[in-house]
Amino acid sequence: MKLGAGGGVKLGALATPALLVDSAALDHNLRTMSAALPGPRLRPHVKAHKCTALAHRQAALGHRAFTCATVREMEGMAAAGLGEDLLLANEVLDARRLGALAARGARVTVAVDSEATLEAAAAGGVREVLVDVNVGLPRCGCAPEDAGRLADLARRRGLSVRGVMGYEGHLMIVPDRAEQAKRVAEAMALLARAAADVGGDVISAGGTGSYDLNRVATEIQAGSYALMDTAYAVLRQPFRLALSVLATVISVSPRFAVADCGLKALGMDHGNPAVDGAKVWFCSDEHVTFAPERPLRPGDRIRVWPAHVDPTVAYHERLHVVDGEDVVEVWPVDLRGW
Amino acid sequence: MKLGAGGGVKLGALATPALLVDSAALDHNLRTMSAALPGPRLRPHVKAHKCTALAHRQAALGHRAFTCATVREMEGMAAAGLGEDLLLANEVLDARRLGALAARGARVTVAVDSEATLEAAAAGGVREVLVDVNVGLPRCGCAPEDAGRLADLARRRGLSVRGVMGYEGHLMIVPDRAEQAKRVAEAMALLARAAADVGGDVISAGGTGSYDLNRVATEIQAGSYALMDTAYAVLRQPFRLALSVLATVISVSPRFAVADCGLKALGMDHGNPAVDGAKVWFCSDEHVTFAPERPLRPGDRIRVWPAHVDPTVAYHERLHVVDGEDVVEVWPVDLRGW
Repeated sequence: MKLGAGGGVKLGALATPALLVDSAALDHNLRTMSAALPGPRLRPHVKAHKCTALAHRQAALGHRAFTCATVREMEGMAAAGLGEDLLLANEVLDARRLGALAARGARVTVAVDSEATLEAAAAGGVREVLVDVNVGLPRCGCAPEDAGRLADLARRRGLSVRGVMGYEGHLMIVPDRAEQAKRVAEAMALLARAAADVGGDVISAGGTGSYDLNRVATEIQAGSYALMDTAYAVLRQPFRLALSVLATVISVSPRFAVADCGLKALGMDHGNPAVDGAKVWFCSDEHVTFAPERPLRPGDRIRVWPAHVDPTVAYHERLHVVDGEDVVEVWPVDLRGW
Repeated sequence: MKLGAGGGVKLGALATPALLVDSAALDHNLRTMSAALPGPRLRPHVKAHKCTALAHRQAALGHRAFTCATVREMEGMAAAGLGEDLLLANEVLDARRLGALAARGARVTVAVDSEATLEAAAAGGVREVLVDVNVGLPRCGCAPEDAGRLADLARRRGLSVRGVMGYEGHLMIVPDRAEQAKRVAEAMALLARAAADVGGDVISAGGTGSYDLNRVATEIQAGSYALMDTAYAVLRQPFRLALSVLATVISVSPRFAVADCGLKALGMDHGNPAVDGAKVWFCSDEHVTFAPERPLRPGDRIRVWPAHVDPTVAYHERLHVVDGEDVVEVWPVDLRGW
């Protein structure tokens, strides 16, 4: 099925497992975030959906700058005509593909957090960087007090330093909002200090879990808000679960039922998915075993709600946008791989 | 890079993350299993590797019958010329694609465990079935005492019943071998009783964890043995870890390092991967954070050992077969999706 052509297909006709996006929930999520963070205040992260058709929806709402996690995502976004301002919010030691992308006309900015990564950026032909600052998540990012030195080095190497980024990823899901606000503020104080040392006009940070708490970032790198998952749902944000996997019940026993959506169709790092009206027991490669509250029969269809959106989408070739029982669009998940 | 043409590529030239298969370990694993279970005694399960090039290696060692978990795997195997005897060891409620495959000349057998699934097989044009029997794993399979009745129904519906299958998947990883042997024997006693009621000459069961313990099955459905993972490694079997992910160190801090192999490049349902000479802290979408015993620098390459082979392979587009520092073949992972 080609892009944009659901072609009158009904949900019941889809082979399972099939990744579904509820059209109304997606629209609600996109508009809600755009109202909160209009235009350049939001730099949507494409890693959560890996889908340029969905990114076009975000761009149509006024967000022209995007965040990526992989070189492949950068390349795919540029190829889809969305290369106006692409940030690779990640470090690379070989920036040649990024340099080639910039040479073809995309605006390419890459995160650097060491002499080696800024050297790689320059050697690969990338011209613009953000200094990535560790604000508490034990992952990438230089120490805040080292950011100014790296910015100086980068400028001496001929790079344009647009500012800083610092992802408070360890604070995305903190159920107590007051506690979360306090800790986000502490993390962002580190980033603000680094920003003062670095210069530039960009302070890029944040995510779906902190989009309304971050008072320092000039732009928020949220991605999950578009589709959402059961892990984020505990935060009681204004976003709706838009992503599910349609599955078929293939076997029924007295105490449990089995459907054809297994751990190869789901990101499992946040644990088991949820099934409406049922207790999930476990997932195998191609099965979910669950105890339903009401009797099911082989052939019945169920919705499986993933615990983590990003690695779920990455297993699927396409997203089916649905309105009730109608498949209204089919979008390739075209940013997979590396 | 095209199939079979590593083209003189060195490991150091690969973009990361890259899925690697150690050529010698793979060869050892394939030969070891073939010696233990020659020819038709082994019905290799392709779900673990999803790669027809690897399946051709298994076929070359004398295994011409294969096990699949999805319709896509069945179609891909037939398209690769490996359709001599394909078993879908799983239930489907829509067998039309399988019927079409049989009509094109593949030998197609599908598992059935209910009237609905045998009806679907017949309606879809499939001619041969195995009765799937629950031997203790709470998943698919009819009650052992119901198998004979289903076989009768299937035959009345015009289907050829080749025998039974029953997967003792809950007993694959039992560290105490004597305990494992006892429990496998109990599970297989259930299958033997069902086989007597069903008739036919096939008793299909087993996997890598029980391949040398199962005394009842006429054929073993092992798959993981070819590539292996750290979960199976606890069994101290004669198979070697052949599968790893090559990653690049992208960031280094005083207490930890970060490499570019995250949870979108790994099956996470069995937990974190292992890194040689390091303690893994956690994985993010595109990162693994770990504490190395010796200092690392950005740009260093590491090997990440997945905890679960099947969902790891399913994230990757290709397998790089390596001999030391040489990439000797590149195999598409061509059985992904559904």
